[in-house]
Amino acid sequence: MGPGPSDISPEVLASLSRPVIGHLDPLFVGMMDEVKALLQYAFQTKNEFTIALSAPGSAGMEACFVNLVEAGDKVIVCRNGVFGDRMIQNVTRIGAEAIVVDSPWGRAVETAKVEQALIANPDAKFVAFVHAETSTGAVSDAKALCALAQEHNCLSIVDAVTSLGGIELRVDDWGIDAIYSGSQKCLSCVPGLSPISFSEKAVNVIKERKTQIQSWFLDQSLVMSYWSGKGKRSYHHTAPVNSLYGLHESLVQLQNEGIENRWARHQTQHETLAKGLKKMGIEFIVPEDERLPQLNAIYIPEGADDVKVRNYLLNHYNLEIGAGLGDFAGKAWRIGIMGYAARSENVALCLTALEDALNQ
Amino acid sequence: MGPGPSDISPEVLASLSRPVIGHLDPLFVGMMDEVKALLQYAFQTKNEFTIALSAPGSAGMEACFVNLVEAGDKVIVCRNGVFGDRMIQNVTRIGAEAIVVDSPWGRAVETAKVEQALIANPDAKFVAFVHAETSTGAVSDAKALCALAQEHNCLSIVDAVTSLGGIELRVDDWGIDAIYSGSQKCLSCVPGLSPISFSEKAVNVIKERKTQIQSWFLDQSLVMSYWSGKGKRSYHHTAPVNSLYGLHESLVQLQNEGIENRWARHQTQHETLAKGLKKMGIEFIVPEDERLPQLNAIYIPEGADDVKVRNYLLNHYNLEIGAGLGDFAGKAWRIGIMGYAARSENVALCLTALEDALNQ
Repeated sequence: MGPGPSDISPEVLASLSRPVIGHLDPLFVGMMDEVKALLQYAFQTKNEFTIALSAPGSAGMEACFVNLVEAGDKVIVCRNGVFGDRMIQNVTRIGAEAIVVDSPWGRAVETAKVEQALIANPDAKFVAFVHAETSTGAVSDAKALCALAQEHNCLSIVDAVTSLGGIELRVDDWGIDAIYSGSQKCLSCVPGLSPISFSEKAVNVIKERKTQIQSWFLDQSLVMSYWSGKGKRSYHHTAPVNSLYGLHESLVQLQNEGIENRWARHQTQHETLAKGLKKMGIEFIVPEDERLPQLNAIYIPEGADDVKVRNYLLNHYNLEIGAGLGDFAGKAWRIGIMGYAARSENVALCLTALEDALNQ
Repeated sequence: MGPGPSDISPEVLASLSRPVIGHLDPLFVGMMDEVKALLQYAFQTKNEFTIALSAPGSAGMEACFVNLVEAGDKVIVCRNGVFGDRMIQNVTRIGAEAIVVDSPWGRAVETAKVEQALIANPDAKFVAFVHAETSTGAVSDAKALCALAQEHNCLSIVDAVTSLGGIELRVDDWGIDAIYSGSQKCLSCVPGLSPISFSEKAVNVIKERKTQIQSWFLDQSLVMSYWSGKGKRSYHHTAPVNSLYGLHESLVQLQNEGIENRWARHQTQHETLAKGLKKMGIEFIVPEDERLPQLNAIYIPEGADDVKVRNYLLNHYNLEIGAGLGDFAGKAWRIGIMGYAARSENVALCLTALEDALNQ
């Protein structure tokens, strides 16, 4: 019950042990087509370019930036936690300019400030933000931010690592242009894959680039033909076959449950957890209306020893909760109820175990 | 029995299904230390910086180039197949200059030509080559090439994707400075990880760079502290936990067998296969003394239909052999006997099935 990797269902774990087959085997290629369709469902998009990148979410982030952004481009980057900061790193390493819009850690991105930045920088080409900040537990208004980007002729680049499958996320309805996620959060698959999706507008920007993409491995123009489903699959790199078995299985489970039901399940479990924490006098970092249900960031109660409590939970209950990150290191805990972990038995265990740990 | 992913042992497959645990969990960190020691054994090195990169071999290649090479640097790249070509792509995308030394496809890299290039380019900083060309089945003299590089004050960058665990490879004895491999070839683990190792000299080059590494995800100066084993593990990205269970298990199997025994096993199985193929009148692309035992590239016999034969093998015998790549597309097959696949029963099946397929 940390900030991820989340618990994995027995079915997904079992799927990982299927014998490996070739990444160009017709059976495997058929499964890839299904993964693509299932990812389109998860993202709520019809984007043709919707794939699982063969590397973790941080590589998904870099793929979005290096494919779309060219040296000299201006990118408005919203920072309200660790991952906004990482976006800035990505932008500057391309030789592009990051216009940083800071919002307080533990709060949503301030839409009004982003609008000001867009007005002050009419030559900006992109707006980048984190939908669900894993480091603080705050959700930002992705719909409003994407609408703002569109109004100002900018493409949106969205981090959905912790949001995909956990809270409402509608790529097409909200007009998201480039989005990346991770397999190990609310999808409850093994860590190591990054679902990504590009709008037609984003694909055109890639096609019309003036400069070569600086990364060969992340150059999506080379990968498109492998995933295209049209004609011959051309070899780019050896796909992580067994991890993709797991992703396929976890996406089938998502489809069987129904994405809206899954969003609702995260909310229900969160409310039970929040009620129990309140009884114990524990306070949330994030105000209620900006709070992620799947990532509960709470202040460490006065007098409690951060490391001692987390070790007690791990050693006595086989239960992991996350430490604070960045500004919140040593000050907060992060309790994840993501995907398969968002169950009544987990929430009950967590509350009882935490109470016990605090009374030691 | 294609060019990889290779067959995976039941033990490695089973290890993948262990419950996921946090990538900062003490138990997991302990396993990472073991993976590092086991990789040092596989590479025959004491290099402190020896890790498994959380992405496929192509990302391992890119990691070696983007960490060591800076814009403007001169790199001698040996090309005798598809993967030498990919190295050139990597060099030019950094803004560095590739001095290309071409050797015929299906042959070893010509050492004398490399020496000429080194003499003609005294300002070259690196020599890059592929130890075992997966696209052609040729092995190059890594020991001689690294000695040449050292003589001319160059660092060596070596592709060991198909060689690691399959043929003799001695990183320290041969003075290799940067090396990358893949998990899915002779280590017989799932695809998706890239073992890499940097010599002290290479690590110093990274530390003394004048420019920032263009990739955040592949910036090994950020990863070193996670794998260092000294003090606090700092978070960089979520490690692919379950795939690393598999790598750990496959490396334990390698250690139990003994690396020299494994090299010998590949050779023995290759000789049986070669004898059988010769009986069928099938010819190898590569001359005997430059031939990889684990990757047998053969000419498609006259009159045989490339796709039909491969489909027959797949559909009637559940057996995959690889198609030709690059210059050899449509002209060659590639039969892999890598790691767990290098067994008498596989070689026997392959010979019988291929004979049957050719007689259809």
